[in-house]
Amino acid sequence: MLNVIRADSSGVSAADRGIAYGDGLFETIRMRGRRAVLRSLHLDRIVADAARLGIPVHRHDLDTAITQAGVIYEAGFKGCDWVLKLILTRGSGGRGYRLPENCQPNLIVSVSAMPPLPDSGGVVADLSQFPLTVNPQLAGIKTLNRLEQVMASREFTGQEFELIMRDITGYLVEGTRTNLFFRHGKKWLTPPGRSLAVAGVMRKYLIECLRETGHEVVEEAVQPSILSSPDFRGLYLTNSVVGIVPVRQMGGVDLPLDGGLETICDPLKTLE
Amino acid sequence: MLNVIRADSSGVSAADRGIAYGDGLFETIRMRGRRAVLRSLHLDRIVADAARLGIPVHRHDLDTAITQAGVIYEAGFKGCDWVLKLILTRGSGGRGYRLPENCQPNLIVSVSAMPPLPDSGGVVADLSQFPLTVNPQLAGIKTLNRLEQVMASREFTGQEFELIMRDITGYLVEGTRTNLFFRHGKKWLTPPGRSLAVAGVMRKYLIECLRETGHEVVEEAVQPSILSSPDFRGLYLTNSVVGIVPVRQMGGVDLPLDGGLETICDPLKTLE
Repeated sequence: MLNVIRADSSGVSAADRGIAYGDGLFETIRMRGRRAVLRSLHLDRIVADAARLGIPVHRHDLDTAITQAGVIYEAGFKGCDWVLKLILTRGSGGRGYRLPENCQPNLIVSVSAMPPLPDSGGVVADLSQFPLTVNPQLAGIKTLNRLEQVMASREFTGQEFELIMRDITGYLVEGTRTNLFFRHGKKWLTPPGRSLAVAGVMRKYLIECLRETGHEVVEEAVQPSILSSPDFRGLYLTNSVVGIVPVRQMGGVDLPLDGGLETICDPLKTLE
Repeated sequence: MLNVIRADSSGVSAADRGIAYGDGLFETIRMRGRRAVLRSLHLDRIVADAARLGIPVHRHDLDTAITQAGVIYEAGFKGCDWVLKLILTRGSGGRGYRLPENCQPNLIVSVSAMPPLPDSGGVVADLSQFPLTVNPQLAGIKTLNRLEQVMASREFTGQEFELIMRDITGYLVEGTRTNLFFRHGKKWLTPPGRSLAVAGVMRKYLIECLRETGHEVVEEAVQPSILSSPDFRGLYLTNSVVGIVPVRQMGGVDLPLDGGLETICDPLKTLE
């Protein structure tokens, strides 16, 4: 049975394994009124990744929580889009790291206004100096273990919309809160799922959308040198709240901006 | 100013960055009455690692929290040793991963009885199949990002006292909750700090104690093949609650047990 906690009215037990170990995952969902953008993909991801972590949860209970949050919180945002955050923890109990025999997960529901949306003419990004390490068994899961992203975010100077993180060998992997799409010649490149800390729902939507519209999408490791390649045509940051954001300048260097990803795929079409 | 939360009387804000991102660290301390074993080393570690994470905290405030916990909780354990757990989080606030401008850390104080102490004749261990990945910038810090240890702990069958985790290339790194000391010939080997997820306080104490008593301690990466080397004389698991635990059987194979680490160094001498 899923225990739903509304963050605006209740705290969390200090014994929750979410706080003790980051033992859980989270999801941030863009809401338009009572409707959730990419709702099915969000539900798919929570259910699949909770299963990878061994946290028992029913899709129906999560679906109900999204519906109820829409009913409760919509009015407060006066017609503007808003953000629903769901944190799923394994709950309390267990001896140390060991799992409790009877796992009673908590779902912490919180809401916020949309963050400022970036200029449609593109944003400024830079490289983070903080390396990203990914456990192959946890790759892609939006777990509550996000200290690497927190530490990378300390490097923001106020000029950058995003900082791009690299793995230990220097490949570009993802932004602190976004996935990456590179337009290279006629192809779209995006780092492979097994290399990602977080495999975004928007990333999944875009890969499918691009392929359905006849584009070639290749999941492969990407070197920073791609940005100065003659075939490079554009870099896009994606997540399910801000959508698709072109990068116009990276590390002080202007980038080409002719990939047009945001004109090919419009995630707001996927309101349920 | 450090906000102290007693886990037995209060919950944690659902907006705490500890639960959102595992943005913090923790410490488990063995208590004897009101006295903390390895107190100075614990305080040293929290202060140093909080600084690495950029969480502002004063040693004096932490020291006071340990003293107060001793006064409050000692009587409940009726003369038995007990365990004090301190969770330090960055507190609430900030936009997403970005840090709040004014950071007000929380210190969550909880206590528990000692876990069952293992047979002094040695314990059974095995290898975990879950790989351990360590970000070089976070190596050794007992952060709240502990999903790898949780996932490895799912493999416990009830027969093992501990499961030993390996890095991606197969080197032995540490147990789910313990560090490793190998007696090899006349030397003591322990995996180097830069390779560790958690560099235990007991590990630090033992390295210093061994060196002070004339032993050679080498920090180097250790292959599993060491266990069948003719020079191998013993494997010890260490942490600051259970102390020093010899391993008598690993993966079904009996191990030699003549290292005698627990007779060379006695951490209970270090009650403040």
